[in-house]
Amino acid sequence: MNELHFAPGACSFVPHVALELVRAATGEDFAPRLVKLHKGEHLTPEYLALNPDGQVPLLVADGRPLSQVVAICDWLDRQYPAAGLLPADPWTRAQAMSVLAWMNNTVHPTFTHVFMPHKFADGELSHAELKRFNAERYRSLLERIQSLVERGAPWLFGERVGVVDAYALTLLRWGGMAKIDPDSLPAYKAYVDRLAATPAVAAALERERLPLHTFKKD
Amino acid sequence: MNELHFAPGACSFVPHVALELVRAATGEDFAPRLVKLHKGEHLTPEYLALNPDGQVPLLVADGRPLSQVVAICDWLDRQYPAAGLLPADPWTRAQAMSVLAWMNNTVHPTFTHVFMPHKFADGELSHAELKRFNAERYRSLLERIQSLVERGAPWLFGERVGVVDAYALTLLRWGGMAKIDPDSLPAYKAYVDRLAATPAVAAALERERLPLHTFKKD
Ligand SMILES: N[C@@H](CCC(=O)N[C@@H](CS)C(=O)NCC(=O)O)C(=O)O
Ligand SMILES: N[C@@H](CCC(=O)N[C@@H](CS)C(=O)NCC(=O)O)C(=O)O
Repeated sequence: MNELHFAPGACSFVPHVALELVRAATGEDFAPRLVKLHKGEHLTPEYLALNPDGQVPLLVADGRPLSQVVAICDWLDRQYPAAGLLPADPWTRAQAMSVLAWMNNTVHPTFTHVFMPHKFADGELSHAELKRFNAERYRSLLERIQSLVERGAPWLFGERVGVVDAYALTLLRWGGMAKIDPDSLPAYKAYVDRLAATPAVAAALERERLPLHTFKKD
Repeated sequence: MNELHFAPGACSFVPHVALELVRAATGEDFAPRLVKLHKGEHLTPEYLALNPDGQVPLLVADGRPLSQVVAICDWLDRQYPAAGLLPADPWTRAQAMSVLAWMNNTVHPTFTHVFMPHKFADGELSHAELKRFNAERYRSLLERIQSLVERGAPWLFGERVGVVDAYALTLLRWGGMAKIDPDSLPAYKAYVDRLAATPAVAAALERERLPLHTFKKD
């Protein structure tokens, strides 16, 4: 049995959608475990024993812990090829892994600089600068994702919704919190709106009780 | 035919070792392509057409470009399972992917904050703070790698040298540039010294003309 430790709206949304896709394709169920980050539940001794990083996502597969979005997605894809989490064709799969890794090591951490600058520096001035500088960088990275969206059809890597799509949705949601209006990225927004209506994504959004768009005008 | 675009001492060392391991296991040769970062060769229109990130590593496999360390390693491992780039057992492989992804999205970017703070902020004061703060973080991350080294034997994931080992070596080398004395991490250093003497790693070090240790006392 797969258990997923997740926090609403966090990057754990990516394996959350993956497990919904697995269920739809194979009937294999999973146990969602909500981790309340604001209550520090990721920093308890019990949680740190499973994941010394003190982060979500964490997959527990038959009692064995696995951390890191990329590793969890690769593992689930290999276990459940019928779910189409990554493309079946080997070269297309490699390109999807490249985009997944880039979202994970570049786009996601750029948002972290905006949202949690204290992870990277300890001065107030630097925090303000990290927020401003990286919010700008983040916008240009979302523009690059939009250009990928414009090339892919209907989903980023073809006919099936996969983990790269789930990450793309998460990153646009976060954009709203960095004051990036999704209406300024219309092709990306239209794609995310379509994606949110697909069954696996809709189920994960509902379980996490997530509003799809987070942008608010000041 | 595989071509690898690499820069001496950069993270492209990881796929460089991978291709040496592939050659040793299968006889399949590769073409190394040196990219001179200090001359901006990664920012020419020709290079950017292959890799819009303007970074190394870039693998060109039968004329088709693939970027991102993690995606290149996963692809090569799937193409050449005999090379043992990642462990053969599926669960052990997933754990190795987790460490590979963590090195790539956490340890590596922490060093980038020390080495290229202008990628994350634009003020002089912030640059100094990013360097100091992240050099300290980097040390604690190298200590975590040392604890993995102490658990794994002889290599991080068992009997065969793999891509996670190649990344571990690279990260300790970078430590020297962040003023971290490898002698302060004796188990990690001894492991890297042993690793550097294995044929594939030695061949890659020699082609890149790399001194193994970069630390200098002020
Ligand atoms: N490198 C990790 C990053 C995970 C991550 O950034 N998790 C965030 C939520 S998106 C988290 O748990 N934050 C809480 C914290 O770091 O204190 C992965 O790819 O899984
Ligand atoms: N996310 C990329 C990172 C690649 C990277 O950081 N490359 C560095 C060398 S270690 C580079 O090309 N730096 C030149 C630059 O960014 O200007 C990957 O995993 O492949």
